[in-house]
Amino acid sequence: MNRLIQQGDNPLLTEERKKCTFDTDVLATIFHESEQTFRRRREIYDYFLRHKELHDPEPVEFMDRYQKLENAERKLLMFRKHTDIIIPNKDPDDVQTLTSFVFHSDGYPVRLHNIMGIPTILNNADDEQAAEWLPKAMNLEFISTYAQTELGHGTNLRKLETIATYDPKTEEFILDSPTVTATKWWPGNLAKVSNYIVVVARLLSNGKDHGPHPFFVQIRDPKTHESLPGVTVGDIGPKFFINTTDNGFLQFNKVRIPRRAMFMKNAKLLPDGTYVPPVHSKLAYGTMVYVRSVTVTIMARYLAQAATISTRYSAIRKQGEIEPGKGEVSVLEYQTQRYRIFPQIARAWAYEACGRYTKKLYMEFLQGINQGKADVLPDLHAISSVLKAVVTHQVCLGIEQCRMACGGHGYSTASGLPQLFSLAVGGCTYEGENMVLLLQCARYLVKCAAAVRLNKKPSRVSPIAEYLFSNDSSKKCRI
Amino acid sequence: MNRLIQQGDNPLLTEERKKCTFDTDVLATIFHESEQTFRRRREIYDYFLRHKELHDPEPVEFMDRYQKLENAERKLLMFRKHTDIIIPNKDPDDVQTLTSFVFHSDGYPVRLHNIMGIPTILNNADDEQAAEWLPKAMNLEFISTYAQTELGHGTNLRKLETIATYDPKTEEFILDSPTVTATKWWPGNLAKVSNYIVVVARLLSNGKDHGPHPFFVQIRDPKTHESLPGVTVGDIGPKFFINTTDNGFLQFNKVRIPRRAMFMKNAKLLPDGTYVPPVHSKLAYGTMVYVRSVTVTIMARYLAQAATISTRYSAIRKQGEIEPGKGEVSVLEYQTQRYRIFPQIARAWAYEACGRYTKKLYMEFLQGINQGKADVLPDLHAISSVLKAVVTHQVCLGIEQCRMACGGHGYSTASGLPQLFSLAVGGCTYEGENMVLLLQCARYLVKCAAAVRLNKKPSRVSPIAEYLFSNDSSKKCRI
Repeated sequence: MNRLIQQGDNPLLTEERKKCTFDTDVLATIFHESEQTFRRRREIYDYFLRHKELHDPEPVEFMDRYQKLENAERKLLMFRKHTDIIIPNKDPDDVQTLTSFVFHSDGYPVRLHNIMGIPTILNNADDEQAAEWLPKAMNLEFISTYAQTELGHGTNLRKLETIATYDPKTEEFILDSPTVTATKWWPGNLAKVSNYIVVVARLLSNGKDHGPHPFFVQIRDPKTHESLPGVTVGDIGPKFFINTTDNGFLQFNKVRIPRRAMFMKNAKLLPDGTYVPPVHSKLAYGTMVYVRSVTVTIMARYLAQAATISTRYSAIRKQGEIEPGKGEVSVLEYQTQRYRIFPQIARAWAYEACGRYTKKLYMEFLQGINQGKADVLPDLHAISSVLKAVVTHQVCLGIEQCRMACGGHGYSTASGLPQLFSLAVGGCTYEGENMVLLLQCARYLVKCAAAVRLNKKPSRVSPIAEYLFSNDSSKKCRI
Repeated sequence: MNRLIQQGDNPLLTEERKKCTFDTDVLATIFHESEQTFRRRREIYDYFLRHKELHDPEPVEFMDRYQKLENAERKLLMFRKHTDIIIPNKDPDDVQTLTSFVFHSDGYPVRLHNIMGIPTILNNADDEQAAEWLPKAMNLEFISTYAQTELGHGTNLRKLETIATYDPKTEEFILDSPTVTATKWWPGNLAKVSNYIVVVARLLSNGKDHGPHPFFVQIRDPKTHESLPGVTVGDIGPKFFINTTDNGFLQFNKVRIPRRAMFMKNAKLLPDGTYVPPVHSKLAYGTMVYVRSVTVTIMARYLAQAATISTRYSAIRKQGEIEPGKGEVSVLEYQTQRYRIFPQIARAWAYEACGRYTKKLYMEFLQGINQGKADVLPDLHAISSVLKAVVTHQVCLGIEQCRMACGGHGYSTASGLPQLFSLAVGGCTYEGENMVLLLQCARYLVKCAAAVRLNKKPSRVSPIAEYLFSNDSSKKCRI
């Protein structure tokens, strides 16, 4: 029932596949959540295979950073042309599918515009702002990115040093990077591509510090692409991976921007400098929960890819005899090899389920918010924090096991495994440093423990944590 | 007593260094094993710093593979010129010291010639062969590398597919790669640089297979650098790291080489095809032990470098407040940060000691061999196998902890940490795949256990394993 068997495959691989006891298409349907999604994915993949101009002229591992970026820019033009043909209704899932085939996981020139720029406009611009910015953004009349982390500040957001000081006389903000450590550092697609930026700066008005807020700022001339006066922007250099993405740095030297450059769907600043705080101050945490659930799912898939490569390789790699004189066997026959690889397959599925479950909880939370309830947020924050930390860490260890299980060939980029590791390992740091996230969950559990010890069950306990307060020891966590 | 304090350093770093309770030069002397070595190292380093033509024009991480190789070739010429000046007596340790400053750890064009080609001639050529080959090798009249691993065979050396069939009529060997999997794969400096090669092939003579033996073969024209007839040679492409080294592949199509191309210090083949086996058939294992002890030492130093970078960064990186309102603190103040980094410092020293101890045991073994005793070899093999496997694995985990402890900046190659990881992690595979080595040690221990259970103490027990057979439970392993 293995639907992957093809003529011309390595016979050892076919032999293994013949042993399959289930229909691989049924499993693929479960993975892609519906048969329609799965079929559509195959359709798009076949289309991609047939159109060479969507491919890389040579493996990107042979290119330097500038060639990688140029190649990605060329592919972006082809991508837009072919999207019109194969996805005329612009279905976002289908577009994402084609994106993953064309650009792999090393980034592309408008990635941050798509995943951070546009969503920030959607979630943070008021109606008037959205009416002005969104059509242009969708039409790529500008390319934007998102700048929060600074050279000196990542985890402790409240101490960001970039400031936006309001001047009520001219109704403008003065954006400034007062120190070297205030330099925005890391934004993807900033070094070479973007001409607009969502910048997070501490809002100062009437002598008061209102903390970090997002602003929408032009940084480059639309014609010459030169940086605008007062803006210093450049490249932060090569990284462990994701080198097709031009991560950059940015400094402002007292740059004046209009009052309406501040995103005003949530917090607002009136012309006289009066600050109006947002209604749902905790909504930002909700977004973090969502991003972490997505991270868990993405990580599960990296591990699944590594396990697939490693399992297939182990089927066709013969080395050593188990019974002397009987000939060499596939390394998959060795217990130690199985012990290395098979748990990674199981983990990939388990983490896939974790990602889906957290996303479901997030959707329930969103529904609750609409009814004015946000009390499940601490539980959701704790569970998504610990899952993100544990899954990213275990996935990286798992990919390394898969890589080492391929021996020397796992060290060659031809295996794809060094790239998967270097890609996944970034996840231990971004979207909340793992050690910090583990402590967030620990703090939540210690709070729960104190409440249990005092026999003080909170007035409303979320279904996630309910079992902790139950006298029935057979009751288990709902996850 | 910290001798590293300099004007202009980050004041936070100076503050930490002022707390030092010992003389850092004394520790450095212990590390470099003598004050003379340590002083000489500083001298060479200062010389290196003063001579810009020995430096990279830009960080190599910005170069593509071809630029890296060209830059290394340029530096090699400068290196030879400056070696004559600063190391006129060509002291090998001093040359190695300068090499490490000039070429870092990413390889250089004659690295394999130096560490494998020349030593193979020294250890495997008979007097006549050595008289012919060695002066030319030392004088770089040719550049050689070492080809053992094949596309299809690494661990199971006995099944190498490259064959050298002896033809007594012409007194020649016919070198052949009968299958695709017989292709030599991985030799460093093979793809572009080398024109000679030490190739390991199964020796067939008079219808008998005598197993793998080394041969010395010219593969490229000395003038045009084109590959010779019957030789196919090329590049295996980019790797996780060490991309300045041009790892290559090689196939022979029935290439005839003279009988005396076989290294004949140990095994010999007479003109009529009679095979004369080596006297010490286990000497090859001894070399493996040596290489593994060196690997342990090198790994210890990679971890020491990572721990140094990470500790210094943690001193100057401020993030978050421990007591609210008291200002941000160095991340080194956090327990979790210390727990991540400090054990790596301890491990680096422990592994440094392991490497030295194993090397000492190897030297004792060599002395024993000269007196006809090789019975310590199984113990030495077991201890060096398990140390190599455990140390490479733990060092990689440790480097990753150091890297992650630097947050986002640890993902940038500017930190040097991604490079250290990608470099060190090769050590889990080369010179004996870790899982295989762990099983080698396990097999040794199971044998010991069986002997203990039967109360059969071997006639001579090595000092390493003696405690296993002692009734005195307070007796400990000598290591």
